[in-house]
Amino acid sequence: ATQISRSVRGEKTLTLDTLNPQVKAVEYAVRGPIVIKAGEIERYLEEGGTKPFSEVIKANIGDAHAMGQKPITFLRQVVALCTFPELMDSPSFPEDAKRRARRILQGCGGHSLGSYSASPGVECIRKDIAAYIEQRDEGVPSDWENIYLTTGASDGIMTILRLLVSGKDSSRTGVMIPIPQYPLYSAAISEMDAVQVNYYLDEDNCWALDINELHRSYQAAKQHCQPRVICIINPGNPTGQVQSKKCIEEVLHFAYEENLFVMSDEVYQDNVYAPDCQFHSFKKVLYEMGPEYFNSVELVSFHSTSKGYTGECGFRGGYMEVINMDPEVKAQLVKLLSVRLCPPLAGQAAMDVIVNPPQPEEHTFKQFHQEKSSVLGALAEKAKLTEKILNAVPGIKCNPVQGAMYAFPRIFIPPKAVEEAKALGMQPDMLYCLRLLEETGICVVPGSGFGQKDGTYHFRMTILPSIEKLKVLLGKVRDFHIGFLKEYSGLE
Amino acid sequence: ATQISRSVRGEKTLTLDTLNPQVKAVEYAVRGPIVIKAGEIERYLEEGGTKPFSEVIKANIGDAHAMGQKPITFLRQVVALCTFPELMDSPSFPEDAKRRARRILQGCGGHSLGSYSASPGVECIRKDIAAYIEQRDEGVPSDWENIYLTTGASDGIMTILRLLVSGKDSSRTGVMIPIPQYPLYSAAISEMDAVQVNYYLDEDNCWALDINELHRSYQAAKQHCQPRVICIINPGNPTGQVQSKKCIEEVLHFAYEENLFVMSDEVYQDNVYAPDCQFHSFKKVLYEMGPEYFNSVELVSFHSTSKGYTGECGFRGGYMEVINMDPEVKAQLVKLLSVRLCPPLAGQAAMDVIVNPPQPEEHTFKQFHQEKSSVLGALAEKAKLTEKILNAVPGIKCNPVQGAMYAFPRIFIPPKAVEEAKALGMQPDMLYCLRLLEETGICVVPGSGFGQKDGTYHFRMTILPSIEKLKVLLGKVRDFHIGFLKEYSGLE
Repeated sequence: ATQISRSVRGEKTLTLDTLNPQVKAVEYAVRGPIVIKAGEIERYLEEGGTKPFSEVIKANIGDAHAMGQKPITFLRQVVALCTFPELMDSPSFPEDAKRRARRILQGCGGHSLGSYSASPGVECIRKDIAAYIEQRDEGVPSDWENIYLTTGASDGIMTILRLLVSGKDSSRTGVMIPIPQYPLYSAAISEMDAVQVNYYLDEDNCWALDINELHRSYQAAKQHCQPRVICIINPGNPTGQVQSKKCIEEVLHFAYEENLFVMSDEVYQDNVYAPDCQFHSFKKVLYEMGPEYFNSVELVSFHSTSKGYTGECGFRGGYMEVINMDPEVKAQLVKLLSVRLCPPLAGQAAMDVIVNPPQPEEHTFKQFHQEKSSVLGALAEKAKLTEKILNAVPGIKCNPVQGAMYAFPRIFIPPKAVEEAKALGMQPDMLYCLRLLEETGICVVPGSGFGQKDGTYHFRMTILPSIEKLKVLLGKVRDFHIGFLKEYSGLE
Repeated sequence: ATQISRSVRGEKTLTLDTLNPQVKAVEYAVRGPIVIKAGEIERYLEEGGTKPFSEVIKANIGDAHAMGQKPITFLRQVVALCTFPELMDSPSFPEDAKRRARRILQGCGGHSLGSYSASPGVECIRKDIAAYIEQRDEGVPSDWENIYLTTGASDGIMTILRLLVSGKDSSRTGVMIPIPQYPLYSAAISEMDAVQVNYYLDEDNCWALDINELHRSYQAAKQHCQPRVICIINPGNPTGQVQSKKCIEEVLHFAYEENLFVMSDEVYQDNVYAPDCQFHSFKKVLYEMGPEYFNSVELVSFHSTSKGYTGECGFRGGYMEVINMDPEVKAQLVKLLSVRLCPPLAGQAAMDVIVNPPQPEEHTFKQFHQEKSSVLGALAEKAKLTEKILNAVPGIKCNPVQGAMYAFPRIFIPPKAVEEAKALGMQPDMLYCLRLLEETGICVVPGSGFGQKDGTYHFRMTILPSIEKLKVLLGKVRDFHIGFLKEYSGLE
């Protein structure tokens, strides 16, 4: 029998049947079927095909530069200087940028961005990050040895979950996540075969986190698994809420009482638009709760170069700060990180600029400050605009976009459309988003990709297009929605 | 009982006891205990401490720039242009570099290195890579849609293993790896809880891969697991051998017969020094075996920006070419990659330069060619020098360094030293390397970190230091070794 050759058997070693089933279980809507479809339509248009629209607008992913946002000049100057140090002699690069680039290169092996860094990152960048956090948190101490550079925040989140989800016993480890959530979390939980423990954000209360819902979720989960970790996204993705200090205190108290490890995804910490909202770091709130809490709750906070006012997604820069981690576990973390050697050095350099930007006394401050304010000002305007236009559409209800870079409006889908979707084996909001894409070229992600209360439907759209384009986009969404309602309410 | 606070209980959520045991099982010698020790000694010296040496020489890791190798100017020019496109107007950047940078940026969202790319990488870079492979393999077709950019080769290797190692059934999946091996493989196998299936390279035959040993290993493994994949490192790490075409044919025939998925780690493809050796890609050899093989054996080949003549480790660039993968599995691969969004764009750009270097008709060719030849020429000289000096030491035997960037000499360790090590609960070659570090400041990695035949001892050292420094290093190794033999043979 072993004489029968492979091709006669027609059998591959790796098929959908033999694939790691945990990989099969992974879903990641932000780049899922709707985005693949959008790519197909784009190619069709490029090849001269015609549609009722001339371009696909990708509002599916928080990719600011792809939507036309310009890089912060100073950041790019520093990274270019690090990349090609011959530019140190160029008079067209400011001394402020050269000073930072020199400092970064001095921390690199052979003074080159081409060397590996230590696995937790370049030492002087870790120190700059710790200094930044201390300043941000108004003096709460930060130890640079608790800072680990990462390949974007996603990498850090996966790594910490990998420590917590316990190998063969994985299916007894509960990971609490908000619903709606950013699907990296559900994807990681599937890949690691852990148990996803949902706590629902309160849509009627601007997507606030309700402590009673945390208790409910935890107690229900304890019936079938051991919840070990709670993940929070603040400001929220996809939901855009900014958590109040009181709410954060409640979460931390809960984590303390129930001995939960806290993962705080704070990549949108610079993206707060609502005048009555403010970013509070989990760490600072923990500190203010007193040493009983500050010296015991295990907390990891994540940040990234990809969001904020820089939007440098392609650099894959990020860091995490790890508080109260058992020293033996920390050694294991460093070992695990070392297998992948180190995060990309250009991303580390970009992160350094974010935590060590031009100061008022530096020549580069004015331009830097203008660029930063311009990006954040435009985002605030677009957040307001999106909420306003969407809420004027019958059958759409959108909470205020207090922060982050997404709107997550609730959409009414008529029962007939729900039935049709079910007949097609499709989520109703998937049907809605596919129709929206086909008819208008607008690519948004169905709420079902993030999770939502049963019987409610949403989509996530970024607020990143230019104001002009965003107005067009929102107008098209409105027209589409009204037409969709008419069609499925039999009013046509 | 729930009223007792955490700190009173003194209990952390995540401890060595509750840590994912698969993480605990991971070992990664290249950055293991000896390297941590080396770091401590470095700090001790910096703080004014004294040792019998003035500096630590890190020959533990293939980090060329850290050892003083200069970047290839053209590569850095292209990446700097991509990073800071204002430089397109600078007359000091060559048109050849600008052309490449423009092409790369045109492939990026918003023409920015700060946007996410598609998860498999920037399309035009994938096309350049496919064209490069076709040229390298003298016309064997390469489809750009089979090319996936990665975050260094390690990321690609982990991703493919993740597909193959089957979730909860992982402990029945056998992964065949060479011994000695690069410990990324054993680390990944531990982390995924798969079964490491060792096949031993033949030290007496220049570390050649012996097909009979493959059969032995496979049959033995079948008693307790299902071997599904065979990993090959060519040129070898840590062993430096370059596989013959005949040997590659035998491996591929074996994989074909036994229905094994082939992972071919070819990151050292540009690092071949021995005049009688040549790099043969697994793909080309497979092609030449005829369509029966070329259309059926599932093969992934890995490459990287970190090695070769560029040594750009910090960019974390790399790619893999995937042959004969089931289309449904490919879709799953893309989904898995999309969770981490994309590899760093600067690394993708660096990879593009490697596969699309200056051509003889371009102005930049001369300098590029000089720099490339100078790096590769020096490496060839250092390979020869290392072998020669080590083989002149009694009790050391070093195979020729045909390729890659390491020597892996066999060292005789006297029985008394072996006993002493065992009493200390330490591998004998760990004792040897720790003593070498303490007495000379030279940091090399014990053979036990890579695997070796029982009762044999080795260390891995890179050949990357400058020729001058390498001579000093090798002289110190010789003196240390002679002293060590004397001490433990009771001849002192």
